[in-house]
Amino acid sequence: MKINVMTDILEANDRIAAANRQVFDRHRNLVLNLMSSPGAGKTTLLEKTAEALQGRLRLGIVVGDIETTRDKERLDRHGLPVVQLTTGSACHLDANMVSSALPHIDLAGVDVLVIENVGNLVCPAEFKVGEDFKVMILSVTEGDEKPLKYPLMFRESSLLLINKVDLLNHTNFSLNEAKANARKINPDMEIIDISCVTGQGIPEWMAWLAGCYQKKFGTKSRA
Amino acid sequence: MKINVMTDILEANDRIAAANRQVFDRHRNLVLNLMSSPGAGKTTLLEKTAEALQGRLRLGIVVGDIETTRDKERLDRHGLPVVQLTTGSACHLDANMVSSALPHIDLAGVDVLVIENVGNLVCPAEFKVGEDFKVMILSVTEGDEKPLKYPLMFRESSLLLINKVDLLNHTNFSLNEAKANARKINPDMEIIDISCVTGQGIPEWMAWLAGCYQKKFGTKSRA
Repeated sequence: MKINVMTDILEANDRIAAANRQVFDRHRNLVLNLMSSPGAGKTTLLEKTAEALQGRLRLGIVVGDIETTRDKERLDRHGLPVVQLTTGSACHLDANMVSSALPHIDLAGVDVLVIENVGNLVCPAEFKVGEDFKVMILSVTEGDEKPLKYPLMFRESSLLLINKVDLLNHTNFSLNEAKANARKINPDMEIIDISCVTGQGIPEWMAWLAGCYQKKFGTKSRA
Repeated sequence: MKINVMTDILEANDRIAAANRQVFDRHRNLVLNLMSSPGAGKTTLLEKTAEALQGRLRLGIVVGDIETTRDKERLDRHGLPVVQLTTGSACHLDANMVSSALPHIDLAGVDVLVIENVGNLVCPAEFKVGEDFKVMILSVTEGDEKPLKYPLMFRESSLLLINKVDLLNHTNFSLNEAKANARKINPDMEIIDISCVTGQGIPEWMAWLAGCYQKKFGTKSRA
């Protein structure tokens, strides 16, 4: 008998992810799985998103880190519901970890739930957590060839946010090259250039969020 | 009976790593396992290292990527012996993969062998490949809190290269904070600030390499 440990793990994970999804749908939550390399700007983007969404859609966050609660502390300052998952040594969130966070967040008070994954351009893309969409960030300091070198996350994500475009002049990153590479891997990928320093692209990111919410629930907001 | 799959995997890996190490020692190779996030600058550093080492120590490289042979193509231009390992979906190199590369490189013609790991701040730190030292790069665009959030790699590495210091003025990265965080995790860690754009820190990195070679083999170079 041959046991395929990885297939078994992913199948078990998918079942729990589907159960999480049912909980989210019942609470009318649009759920995003936000992934990137370490330091690409996930937490900073969420801080900007919290400000930009005020009075429109209510944001909630589950934040995954190997160690420390620093990201939660940063997000807490924005008065959001935030739950921290500390993974110990695991390099990604899985559906079971996210499930364990759900009793600690008031899902009925949330319209958009963002699950901020562990900083890692590889493993998080393999594990569903119950999300509607995977969204990823690539920062311009990482290099425009990254879609070809780490294809799975680009293939799995619906939206690519190219972050830190304010630093473009200080790098050899080509936006055109990065987009061409991303679309070679995933022709349907939507792409928005953003800067959390200048605010570029934040309105487009808000419009994308609102569009997804409307597509899922048929209204622009719960209010 | 309880089977601890992870412990078994790591023990098997360590045995192969020890065998690799014997091969390296027999060929008088100083071997470094070079790790970082995606886009922190591993390949660019190796290009600069190839130039700086010319006429001193002979560099050879094993380069690991999930997909593409782009890094090998960049390094080939420097006339170095380079072997590409394409891991498919694996998010790190292990000792067995490195073992499979060894027949394809003339180890007798190499003094310093750098094994460039997959870009990932988490998993590569768990797997020995036969190296004398682990060396890691943190780039200033990633954030100065990273040692606390991804402690294992900082704990396991002998040397931290803080890269892209030419971009310091464009970030909120504090060198002092980063070094204090790194030394909280690993008090013995050596740290060098570098920039592959300005060349800052490259002489110190060369001196570190030469010192390690001399410590291992009792001479400054084979020649």
